[in-house]
Amino acid sequence: MADKYVVSPLAPPEGFPVLPLIKGVRLATATAGIKYSRTDVMLATINPVSAVAGVFTQSSTRSAAVIDCERKLHKIADSENSLPEEIAVLVNSGNANAFTGRAGEDAVKEVSCQTAKLLGLDENSVFTASTGVIGEPLAFGKITRVLAELKNNLSENNLKDAGQAIMTTDTFPKGAGTVVDFSDKPVAISGIAKGSGMIAPDMATMLAYVFTDANIDQATLQSMVSELTEITFNSVSVDGDTSTSDTFMVAATGLAGNKKIVDQETSDARKFKAGLQSVMMSLAQQIARDGEGATKFVEISVVGAENNSDAKKVAKSIANSPLVKTAISGEDPNWGRVVMAVGKSGAKADRDLLAIGFGNILVAENGQVADSYKEELGQDYMKRQEILITVDLGLGKGSSRFWTCDFSHGYISINADYRS
Amino acid sequence: MADKYVVSPLAPPEGFPVLPLIKGVRLATATAGIKYSRTDVMLATINPVSAVAGVFTQSSTRSAAVIDCERKLHKIADSENSLPEEIAVLVNSGNANAFTGRAGEDAVKEVSCQTAKLLGLDENSVFTASTGVIGEPLAFGKITRVLAELKNNLSENNLKDAGQAIMTTDTFPKGAGTVVDFSDKPVAISGIAKGSGMIAPDMATMLAYVFTDANIDQATLQSMVSELTEITFNSVSVDGDTSTSDTFMVAATGLAGNKKIVDQETSDARKFKAGLQSVMMSLAQQIARDGEGATKFVEISVVGAENNSDAKKVAKSIANSPLVKTAISGEDPNWGRVVMAVGKSGAKADRDLLAIGFGNILVAENGQVADSYKEELGQDYMKRQEILITVDLGLGKGSSRFWTCDFSHGYISINADYRS
Repeated sequence: MADKYVVSPLAPPEGFPVLPLIKGVRLATATAGIKYSRTDVMLATINPVSAVAGVFTQSSTRSAAVIDCERKLHKIADSENSLPEEIAVLVNSGNANAFTGRAGEDAVKEVSCQTAKLLGLDENSVFTASTGVIGEPLAFGKITRVLAELKNNLSENNLKDAGQAIMTTDTFPKGAGTVVDFSDKPVAISGIAKGSGMIAPDMATMLAYVFTDANIDQATLQSMVSELTEITFNSVSVDGDTSTSDTFMVAATGLAGNKKIVDQETSDARKFKAGLQSVMMSLAQQIARDGEGATKFVEISVVGAENNSDAKKVAKSIANSPLVKTAISGEDPNWGRVVMAVGKSGAKADRDLLAIGFGNILVAENGQVADSYKEELGQDYMKRQEILITVDLGLGKGSSRFWTCDFSHGYISINADYRS
Repeated sequence: MADKYVVSPLAPPEGFPVLPLIKGVRLATATAGIKYSRTDVMLATINPVSAVAGVFTQSSTRSAAVIDCERKLHKIADSENSLPEEIAVLVNSGNANAFTGRAGEDAVKEVSCQTAKLLGLDENSVFTASTGVIGEPLAFGKITRVLAELKNNLSENNLKDAGQAIMTTDTFPKGAGTVVDFSDKPVAISGIAKGSGMIAPDMATMLAYVFTDANIDQATLQSMVSELTEITFNSVSVDGDTSTSDTFMVAATGLAGNKKIVDQETSDARKFKAGLQSVMMSLAQQIARDGEGATKFVEISVVGAENNSDAKKVAKSIANSPLVKTAISGEDPNWGRVVMAVGKSGAKADRDLLAIGFGNILVAENGQVADSYKEELGQDYMKRQEILITVDLGLGKGSSRFWTCDFSHGYISINADYRS
């Protein structure tokens, strides 16, 4: 299983990026020894708090930490005028604390309360997440034992370390950041993420945390985050499986001192949203680039659908098709499988209006292979490491972009060739 | 790619079954040389016709032959009192004639017309199907050239040959039959099928044809077939991909001489339906047993759902999860992945009411691992070639059974390790 620990060939060649510091956000990591003999716990504190937003897995078997975070976030959203002065985020890797019944809820409560006590916060201001093995009780004592150490090591300059501590069997830590020039001030956005499909024996929890010094109100940040998640984290896929613990949170300190963003309509709001989107998109694509066994990074662009929802159905159907993904792995320009995936998507499609391309190569149009298409062109194209599949349904103005990776022997090796 | 041609380890050990002859149904095969150097065309004639029913792929990119069959069947259904005296079915393997535009429609028309002319039938009484490579024009001249030979070789005793001629890269021909004792007469049902997931470079067309000498009316047969398809062919999956050409037809001669079945309520109707179900189920399961690279045959049984539709969502989500299927391939009792698949299914589920079992081993209950469960029990169980996964949602009376196979290196090899 050595290949599991080799860095993905699709990882950003420049390594972890230099991220803008976010004043008011401090991070620390520690080695709790839950499963790995490396850092496996991350603590972040955010003070002051201008706004905090989150999006969580829709799974009906979601973990205790996810349910707890949702509840606490609703509480904050419901009382916008009394935002907490400080919030904390505590994440462990190695154990997902999912499907652990009442004991799982108790573990979340215990970790939250002890963290809150140590930091002098209300328990409702501590957000936890867990990623790793499912169904095993979380030895939360190992976490609470390192809380004081974490508190002592809090520093603004620890984003890369934090990105590493939340990894399970990711092959590289994931970070992205940007600085947006507002009309009055620069505003910084920095984030980290983990996830690489569903890695045996762990669940494929996707976790992402983005911090910003923007001054923005609670409801506006949440609506931006919910909207952008749909076209970023919810538009990447490794294997179509959904974790019990997916968590994405954005916390804003307001320390940039910009005129508060209170709706999405101003020029600064649009700039901020674009910056946030670029950070979320980079993190999301890095997850696909760290897909299990991935050798190709694949973008699927669908246009001409009756509406955006139909376009996404088609893009997702292509991205999740084992046949399309194995063909890409085999460098086979098997456009017939793309036709199949369009057909099974459930979206409105007319075979005789459908056009398919690989990159700039038109492969099929009007319901049959394009006159100009030659198999050699497709074969050459599929040798690339980054593949673009385009679909034009020819029906309307709906469009969608989706990102995924190929499906190789590496995926089977990682997920089947071991005994737990 | 030698493994591609080895018979699946899950194939019925007794080989192709001895099927009851269906009087009035005659079959022949020939070698047209479309792609393979073996028999690749099958002709069946049914005379007299008591009823004919069909179910086809729901794909929006379905093939010309599928669209043609649907149209002809509607025509028959709309004029029940003037059923054709004879119908014919012509199937070729090696080329799916799918996504071939206008040329594809012309090919279907030409083959249908020439077959009709040769047999003295109306063109609307000839049903064709094609399975194999997608996107390549069908050299229909190769088919029409062997029509006379096919006609000369028609015999009641050719079901196994027919099952072989419609194979693409199936590893064994699939057949099933039964005799039902009606109150007045015995009634026979015999069928053949092909399909083994999506086999490169072919599409995974599932084709199945069932013949019976039952005397039954058109609308009753169609409604039985539609209903039973849902719990047989639509409850098996190899990779979750949907073909452009899936076709299932049932033709009844009426020669058994039984009192005509005109509704589903009589004792004979229920017996016939049970017999038809057993034949359809056997054919459907044989397709899963011939799944690409399959080493394990998997049944998923879901009970306690709010309704049957929810139960099927859960069963299908488990059956199609690459993570569940790779775990089974690796003989890993990874029940956490079953929890994940339940959670992502979209069906109503309550984590804390959920129970999961492998065979008779209770693995998890009340939202956590069962007290009685030991990992060794699960590990031993997963070494079997036939795996049963049970899920009890604890909510209501909805249930569903679903069949699939594991996801092994063989699947990737068959679908990725070749250059077309």
